[in-house]
Amino acid sequence: MKVKNEIDENESVIVNTVKHRNFPQVPKVIFGKGSFNQLDEILLPERKHIDAPFIFLVDDVFKNTSLAHKVPLRFNDELIFVSSEEEPKTKQVDKLVKSILDKYDSLPSGIVGIGGGTLLDLAKAVSLLLTNKGSAADYQGWDLIQKSSIYHVGVPTISGTGAEVSRTTVLLGPDKKLGINSDYTVFNQVILDPDLSIGVPKNQWFYTGMDCYIHCIESLNGTYLNAFSKSYGEMALELCKEVYLEELDAQDSREKLMMASWHGGMSIAYSQVGVAHAMSYGLSYLLGIKHGIGNCLVFQHLEEFYGEGVILFNKMKEKHQIDLPKGICKDLTEDDFDTLCNVALKMEPLWENALGKNWKDLITREKLKSIYRKI
Amino acid sequence: MKVKNEIDENESVIVNTVKHRNFPQVPKVIFGKGSFNQLDEILLPERKHIDAPFIFLVDDVFKNTSLAHKVPLRFNDELIFVSSEEEPKTKQVDKLVKSILDKYDSLPSGIVGIGGGTLLDLAKAVSLLLTNKGSAADYQGWDLIQKSSIYHVGVPTISGTGAEVSRTTVLLGPDKKLGINSDYTVFNQVILDPDLSIGVPKNQWFYTGMDCYIHCIESLNGTYLNAFSKSYGEMALELCKEVYLEELDAQDSREKLMMASWHGGMSIAYSQVGVAHAMSYGLSYLLGIKHGIGNCLVFQHLEEFYGEGVILFNKMKEKHQIDLPKGICKDLTEDDFDTLCNVALKMEPLWENALGKNWKDLITREKLKSIYRKI
Repeated sequence: MKVKNEIDENESVIVNTVKHRNFPQVPKVIFGKGSFNQLDEILLPERKHIDAPFIFLVDDVFKNTSLAHKVPLRFNDELIFVSSEEEPKTKQVDKLVKSILDKYDSLPSGIVGIGGGTLLDLAKAVSLLLTNKGSAADYQGWDLIQKSSIYHVGVPTISGTGAEVSRTTVLLGPDKKLGINSDYTVFNQVILDPDLSIGVPKNQWFYTGMDCYIHCIESLNGTYLNAFSKSYGEMALELCKEVYLEELDAQDSREKLMMASWHGGMSIAYSQVGVAHAMSYGLSYLLGIKHGIGNCLVFQHLEEFYGEGVILFNKMKEKHQIDLPKGICKDLTEDDFDTLCNVALKMEPLWENALGKNWKDLITREKLKSIYRKI
Repeated sequence: MKVKNEIDENESVIVNTVKHRNFPQVPKVIFGKGSFNQLDEILLPERKHIDAPFIFLVDDVFKNTSLAHKVPLRFNDELIFVSSEEEPKTKQVDKLVKSILDKYDSLPSGIVGIGGGTLLDLAKAVSLLLTNKGSAADYQGWDLIQKSSIYHVGVPTISGTGAEVSRTTVLLGPDKKLGINSDYTVFNQVILDPDLSIGVPKNQWFYTGMDCYIHCIESLNGTYLNAFSKSYGEMALELCKEVYLEELDAQDSREKLMMASWHGGMSIAYSQVGVAHAMSYGLSYLLGIKHGIGNCLVFQHLEEFYGEGVILFNKMKEKHQIDLPKGICKDLTEDDFDTLCNVALKMEPLWENALGKNWKDLITREKLKSIYRKI
């Protein structure tokens, strides 16, 4: 961050002014039970011409469901089912982009992602790579994207990741798990229909919701925090507590978790995630462990960083009788542990947010390995 | 609202699905102490060519202050000081638009409003009327605007109105006080620099902050409320309580009130304001009473609608030793009281939000007059 001194004439003292980030928000959002039914009319004015299709990337758990039948296909639109069994990959993005460019004479009117974080991140990445040449792997990092994406819409069907509101799309690349962070990554339109999360399996509901909860704890305990991010983080945290610790009726619970995810994503605007996310990235990269469960596996062992947050997490876990898998790292070699540490320690902004500018003095590879060994 | 019945296959029951509003958000926002210093670099990429100026509309209380000197004028940019002594008017908008169109060969690159609700609303309205022909009065209402506005930026210097985030610009017209409500009204960019509110006189700080507080009470007690609006309203309300009832240091207080205003504005997205706003519109129209104080004058007498909210309001008023003017309506004629009621009762969505679909059975002109007589 650029820091300069200047005289503040109002306060007549010398103050530091920091360079703040100009943060992009989703410019259009619709919320409410059944709002998915309005997708067709929302897309209509965005159709460029009848040969420029909308490409719908839909989680393949929705094959043969009423949701899949409601996808508003017109003209030469295409629905592509994608598995979310694995974390989204740069190669997968490249393949999707190539197939779209090969198949159609003109760029699509837009990309619509329907699903959880995996599908949302794929939709974001495909819309970026349709206008930015090369491989998705070339753009993993901060503000490497040069050109505006095509129009893209996010329709979350499970709540917690914050992918619907964030300016990143996190991908597994050939040599790292890292987001394509840019202003152009943000969706042009988001549809928040709480009914789409009816039927999510309980474990997945818990892991993905805990992604939001852990965002909030990491953001609110981070050194980057400011009043903007704090207000969103506190709101999301309150909603998570209601959803996971109180007795809400099903619809109320779905709606509140959807809003928690939305605000939790916003709480990262000026803040960052922290230790759990950094370490979870290592697990995803080496073992392909999905992001939500990876966060939980790490977070349960982070009492020394997030004391009360971890106590509350364990309370939620017990209340919902979630058994986290054990012994994930028991057969790993010393080389594997080094890889885990390398990936985690590469996430410098996360560590700086969590532990401050001197984070390198505060965290050792041995400390990280001792935590990974417990998992 | 369009309502239709359909079978929800997930729940196997017949449910009503309502048509939800696709809500516009400010697409770019920067928050933080000193962020106003980044205005120049934010505007640079938005400059169309050197003959397309930025027009800065600045509250004239900033004449000869450091803020006015920091306005980043380049090329043929123009700074226009505008008094906020009176509520913004459709005629005033028309005059500003005409002077800009007469003076420059091409449309401006953009309009920047710097001030409180009055200046923000003027900036929004001028940016709309530069591309939509006719008088601002022609567009008072819902979604009457046909064309996109020019680029416009909001820089609040006092917190509470929510004008920085709302999709309306409320104007006094020849025959009504009513907003130009449209998706194009929303600012393209907002700069939230809490330091700009240093030096706001105490009374104004209170009245404008109470605009936010009253938004929240009206929104949270309204029949339109949904989980989206509720989460923003609760967050803003909590922040208002901290600012006006707890002991915060000055910077913390400025930052929190700025965020309260932001979230309070969002809480109206799917909700609406209510009785206090409807009745306050009457006072503005007939007596030119400014919006913030008008809300307070009405709200103190609304125990039967907003019981606890009014009790808390009076607590805040006492803590900050605010003496609201009395006897405002004592010399009014019966005709005047009719005018007050006419303006207030025209705000149908506000009454419906406050009292439900049968509001006409629940509120009488006599009831309204009895409240106005207390003011």
